[in-house]
Amino acid sequence: MEHTTQVLLQLFLMFAAAKLLGAVFMRFRQPAVIGEILAGVILGPYVLKIVSPSELTMGIAEIGVIILLFTVGLEIKPNDLLRVGGRATLVAVLGIIIPFAGGFFYMRYVGHSTLESVFTGTALVATSVGITARVLADMNILNTEVARVILGAAVVDDILGMILLAIVSSVSEGHVSYLSLGVVIGEAVAFTLVVVFWGSRVVGRIRPRMNSVYSRNPAFIISLLACLGLSVAASYIGMAAIIGAFLAGLAIADHREEWGITERIYALYEFLVPFFFVVMGAQLNLRTFLDRSIIATALIISTIAILTKLIGCGLGAFKMGARDAIRIGFGMVPRGEVGIIVGLVGLRLHTISDAVYSIVIVMTIITTLMAPPVLRLLFKGSK
Amino acid sequence: MEHTTQVLLQLFLMFAAAKLLGAVFMRFRQPAVIGEILAGVILGPYVLKIVSPSELTMGIAEIGVIILLFTVGLEIKPNDLLRVGGRATLVAVLGIIIPFAGGFFYMRYVGHSTLESVFTGTALVATSVGITARVLADMNILNTEVARVILGAAVVDDILGMILLAIVSSVSEGHVSYLSLGVVIGEAVAFTLVVVFWGSRVVGRIRPRMNSVYSRNPAFIISLLACLGLSVAASYIGMAAIIGAFLAGLAIADHREEWGITERIYALYEFLVPFFFVVMGAQLNLRTFLDRSIIATALIISTIAILTKLIGCGLGAFKMGARDAIRIGFGMVPRGEVGIIVGLVGLRLHTISDAVYSIVIVMTIITTLMAPPVLRLLFKGSK
Repeated sequence: MEHTTQVLLQLFLMFAAAKLLGAVFMRFRQPAVIGEILAGVILGPYVLKIVSPSELTMGIAEIGVIILLFTVGLEIKPNDLLRVGGRATLVAVLGIIIPFAGGFFYMRYVGHSTLESVFTGTALVATSVGITARVLADMNILNTEVARVILGAAVVDDILGMILLAIVSSVSEGHVSYLSLGVVIGEAVAFTLVVVFWGSRVVGRIRPRMNSVYSRNPAFIISLLACLGLSVAASYIGMAAIIGAFLAGLAIADHREEWGITERIYALYEFLVPFFFVVMGAQLNLRTFLDRSIIATALIISTIAILTKLIGCGLGAFKMGARDAIRIGFGMVPRGEVGIIVGLVGLRLHTISDAVYSIVIVMTIITTLMAPPVLRLLFKGSK
Repeated sequence: MEHTTQVLLQLFLMFAAAKLLGAVFMRFRQPAVIGEILAGVILGPYVLKIVSPSELTMGIAEIGVIILLFTVGLEIKPNDLLRVGGRATLVAVLGIIIPFAGGFFYMRYVGHSTLESVFTGTALVATSVGITARVLADMNILNTEVARVILGAAVVDDILGMILLAIVSSVSEGHVSYLSLGVVIGEAVAFTLVVVFWGSRVVGRIRPRMNSVYSRNPAFIISLLACLGLSVAASYIGMAAIIGAFLAGLAIADHREEWGITERIYALYEFLVPFFFVVMGAQLNLRTFLDRSIIATALIISTIAILTKLIGCGLGAFKMGARDAIRIGFGMVPRGEVGIIVGLVGLRLHTISDAVYSIVIVMTIITTLMAPPVLRLLFKGSK
């Protein structure tokens, strides 16, 4: 077969399999993202051997995850962050410290390197806003106090998780002296704060002419330029590129409706993001699971991931009563795409092994799969 | 600089330069596509040396041109084709034979190979519907009889041009015996006819559920699957992949509004298509222009491109009177993206040299640049 035909066939199969398995998982009320990862596992080098990570597929996956994080940022308006108040912040902070500590100390205890332990801890940190929000929206309870605390805390979580990932990835790239570590943290924090506090104001000054002759929607072009530009900037100062995309989304979130870009960004999302999850699945080395101790570690880390979020976030929300504290705790359990991203960054930087990557993916899949049924159970009858 | 940073910076600069120069050209009432090609020339290996055609950039460009041709197909409803009638078909057919013959015989005459001459002839064939339609729409005369004939003929032109390209590219890939040539032509014609005549009916049977939980618009996913799937199929039987994408667009065109996919496809278009033109520009070997004879040939071929369309299409429309015949002839002059695609296919198949590629690009730029002002002049005061 000719090279072009082969490349196109690969892209077509990746897209088709992701959409098909995603739809099947949705049909059984499970998150589509699990189906997309499974599509990658099936097409990947350990099963059908159709998709192998190449410069092209990795590149498209990278663009996909940049669009994904840009979309996550777009969903979060800076003012909502400020309105969240003390409780959500407390829930978020305790829900970061305890899972991180749990993951880190357990991995150290079973003999993994400090950097691998730090990455695993980081992967346990960030809640996937998307999955919890989807379940709460499906049950029509997005406007309860519990739901607001969960979403507020998940947002703070996302941002702190991103900063943590920025620091961890800079460190593992070789900046290990305390001085350069300080510089990296300073750069990451400064970059984040500048975009969060001034980004939205700068964006507010831009008044894109709508329906210009050149483009159906110049605001869409400006958004893409901001997304790609801040990704490059973040990558340049040593943070993960996706953090720049996330911050670009945050900066534009306030103007999302006015600019009429939501549907357009989602069109890119629906085309490009599946490639990210398929490539992630294709990178899962199934041979690692031949080692029973890795399966055991994966199950233990998954248990730690669930319990530490439950304890950390539950403690933060304890004043709301035990029942609501448990609901909030479980609402924060799913790690979804954020956990996978942390694993992937670690894998690309050669900081974590295939085995630890497998552990992170299993933890992500278990926490993500269990959240919807448990949440539906816990919230039954409440309105 | 780290590899990821470099790749992202390249993509950002390609996108930003294309959009910027595209906007500048639009500002001066010139086609944006010329600005995007120029962006590629400037970023490319002969000027700033920032963009070099890599597996990733070529791959994204390929996806971009697939989306481009899918969009062109989406604009053409099969029924409009049937309604066009004899005149537009006559204009189209004469407007194909005469430019092809002109290009072919001139290139043979100055000593180029048969295949190079065939490719140059093919590049002279297809009118770019987009540019002419844009000028007529800007002047608010899309509903005159002259405009209808131009657009109808341009559509027939596009399809015949695509079939011609399919044949030419199959032939130059090595199927040179008359038998295999017959098989290839048969496959190409059968594939085209099946999709044109049954595609729309098959698509009409699909009733995508709107607003499903899985996707904001399942019809958009189905459209993308059709676009990628037919691209693979076309590529597999030896045609250019873009012809499959074009036919997928044709098949879906009747259901475009009902499915609500137009804006979504344009979002992909605005993000991905510029990469195609930038890569095209970056592949222009500026050194070829050091050879004066190539500049001379390029200018002569451009003149032939203009005169042969004017004569061929004018003859086809002669019964409408000299004035309208000239208008129709000039309306068919711009070659736009189609000419470039022919050149690119030839370059990739190593059928044409860098010099002939340069000649084709110059011909495309000249015919595309001259159309808007001349058309505005010819149609002045008409309504």
